Amino acid sequence: MTSSLERQKLIRSVAEAARAASRIVARATEDQRNQANLAIADAIDAATTDILAANARDLAGHPDLAPALRDRLMLDEARVAKLAGAVREIAAQPALVGRVEGTEVRPNGLQVSRVRIPLGVIAMIYEARPNVTTDAAALCLKAGNACILRGGREAAETNRALLRAVQVGLAKAELPAEAVQLVPVTDREAIAELVKLDDLIDLCIPRGGEGLIRFVGEHARVPVIKHYKGVCHVYVHAAADVETAIAIVRNAKVQRPGVCNATETVLVDRAIAGDFLPRLLAALPEVELRGDDDARGIIAIGAASEADWAAEYLDLILAVKVVDDMAGAVAHIERYGTCHTEAIVTTERAAADQFLHDVDSSTVLVNASTRFADGGELGLGAEIGISTTRLHAYGPMGAEGLTTTKFVVRGTGQIRS
Amino acid sequence: MTSSLERQKLIRSVAEAARAASRIVARATEDQRNQANLAIADAIDAATTDILAANARDLAGHPDLAPALRDRLMLDEARVAKLAGAVREIAAQPALVGRVEGTEVRPNGLQVSRVRIPLGVIAMIYEARPNVTTDAAALCLKAGNACILRGGREAAETNRALLRAVQVGLAKAELPAEAVQLVPVTDREAIAELVKLDDLIDLCIPRGGEGLIRFVGEHARVPVIKHYKGVCHVYVHAAADVETAIAIVRNAKVQRPGVCNATETVLVDRAIAGDFLPRLLAALPEVELRGDDDARGIIAIGAASEADWAAEYLDLILAVKVVDDMAGAVAHIERYGTCHTEAIVTTERAAADQFLHDVDSSTVLVNASTRFADGGELGLGAEIGISTTRLHAYGPMGAEGLTTTKFVVRGTGQIRS
Repeated sequence: MTSSLERQKLIRSVAEAARAASRIVARATEDQRNQANLAIADAIDAATTDILAANARDLAGHPDLAPALRDRLMLDEARVAKLAGAVREIAAQPALVGRVEGTEVRPNGLQVSRVRIPLGVIAMIYEARPNVTTDAAALCLKAGNACILRGGREAAETNRALLRAVQVGLAKAELPAEAVQLVPVTDREAIAELVKLDDLIDLCIPRGGEGLIRFVGEHARVPVIKHYKGVCHVYVHAAADVETAIAIVRNAKVQRPGVCNATETVLVDRAIAGDFLPRLLAALPEVELRGDDDARGIIAIGAASEADWAAEYLDLILAVKVVDDMAGAVAHIERYGTCHTEAIVTTERAAADQFLHDVDSSTVLVNASTRFADGGELGLGAEIGISTTRLHAYGPMGAEGLTTTKFVVRGTGQIRS
Repeated sequence: MTSSLERQKLIRSVAEAARAASRIVARATEDQRNQANLAIADAIDAATTDILAANARDLAGHPDLAPALRDRLMLDEARVAKLAGAVREIAAQPALVGRVEGTEVRPNGLQVSRVRIPLGVIAMIYEARPNVTTDAAALCLKAGNACILRGGREAAETNRALLRAVQVGLAKAELPAEAVQLVPVTDREAIAELVKLDDLIDLCIPRGGEGLIRFVGEHARVPVIKHYKGVCHVYVHAAADVETAIAIVRNAKVQRPGVCNATETVLVDRAIAGDFLPRLLAALPEVELRGDDDARGIIAIGAASEADWAAEYLDLILAVKVVDDMAGAVAHIERYGTCHTEAIVTTERAAADQFLHDVDSSTVLVNASTRFADGGELGLGAEIGISTTRLHAYGPMGAEGLTTTKFVVRGTGQIRS
């Protein structure tokens, strides 16, 4: 065990090394950063046996993990190949660093541009998922940043094995080892120390349970992009095509119920509820429906309590509520939604436009499953997280969210009068 | 005096009213928001007598204000007319809310757009400057937000008079009075309460002295865009045109020394120092120069201490240092700069490009005065502040910095497989 002061020194030295490395990564060429990612992907492939052995030790060392966590932690050959593939895809994405965005010549002749630059040092704090280790490393490098990774205790061996592969890639591209570091202590106190270092860290992204994210929020002095829970809604409008609505709700609930963009509540217009709800019940035999009084007047299902409207079930349970009209649906989403993802099913363009305008969630959809709220599906490439707070990034966040812009001004001796 | 609990309730009720109003402002039309701003400008003009009387009471009530603060607080007819003019200019800016940014059709036919939306509720915390009251109100309305203003104690009467004009404008455009509110208590505890309300406030922007900004940073649970001090540099490169360099340094130091984009340190290449420094000394008779040993070997000036390199003088004092080359200049800026604004003077394109690439300040210039780091000068229109932290906004920040984007997805029944 390290003492509090030793831990503080250790964390600070990690962050100082990251800051120094971030300058080198930022000034490297795009080609060099891409070469690093390609070499990392190759090194992951080459180290498959080591990575699987480390993963087996993690799994054996934590026999009491919940099945969902165990599944997230577990790697096999196909999953390791997928980790490498994701890193290669990130390398193939278009360049961000140095991209010139909008140039304007001012009346005094100054030529003003905004140029995309890295954020600097990113701290990722996450739980069991090993793919976050390689995705975050690759996305941060692509965007010209250094990163500090603090994965979960239960994945410690796996993450160390993955980091060794990352280091091989960095070395091949002649980028500093400190560009991607694992925090060598995994207790919460280490997190608290890390997120205080606002002179060395530019952004912290916590990914995991609500407890972890709140802990980071409470201790952070550095900016944090938070992703709380996703209580996603599908609103079945009076003018919905019922077949489409059923297919979308089924997909949004059943295809992968344990993820944040799965739908938790269906809102249905009173005018169409008598047609829609019995067909919904028939189409979701494996799902437990919980309804308000109006819904229960139409189909025989259990009662939803107040807690159900705010619940992120992450399970085969679906809350169902009858609303009078769009205003009722929007008001319900405003009250219980989490700014994650909401969809409307309708054949009326005006109704679709109204919903898209009035609902201020980070992703709003018409006639499509909420499961599309995902960086890859929306065209961003791999995602580093989904932000449900509005500053800097809102919704799925890819490599571009790990950059900012500076003003670049070219003059010919202009002075201000 | 209010008790701690009463204050807490009061601040929370202000923020709750702002949240409700923000939804109405966001859903209003662009025309309605512009009409509100035009009506506010007219109301400011019409209330000139009242505003000046209130300002006179503030000035009389705070006889001990430092001259610089007194000048910032003081209004006259011309300054009131300028406040109204700035609001009209903001109304005339192009629409931001609802702007569609990039639409892409995915292989599955989903049409994915990003649409610009308001942030929600903005808290502005500032000191004596009354123009922040009207600029912030107008910029927040333009961007579709509600705002909570907490101005300095010494400007309380002036701010109340300005708020009455804002309220006249809001009423004329049928927007809620709660869209722009002044916090009715001005003690620091009120700030601490306000910046904790992360369920109601989307962004806090503190403007003022370092003490105020640190106080906000320490108490905030809401995202904060900070603007610490500006220690700006001009680097006179070996290939500089010396006349241009002298004119730029003179402008950057002398034209308005008390502002954050004034230059505090000049770095000069050794190769050109013997030519440049004597002419600099002659060209800045009213400025106290403080130099390193190398500079003092060329011109007879006082010595700069370590503290000088980090000083934001805001005064007619200039630190001068001789560097070996660009690497030396960049390293100095990295160590002592504040990510605000730095300029290079050079006739060599390659040197200019290198400096623009290597210096990661929010505004970097070639052959132009640092005084151009300003929203108006860079083409953003009125600015709500200058961010020296990289999240969300970096550098001068106008109305666009008070918005974000959401993903809008139009489908035809797509589900995820």
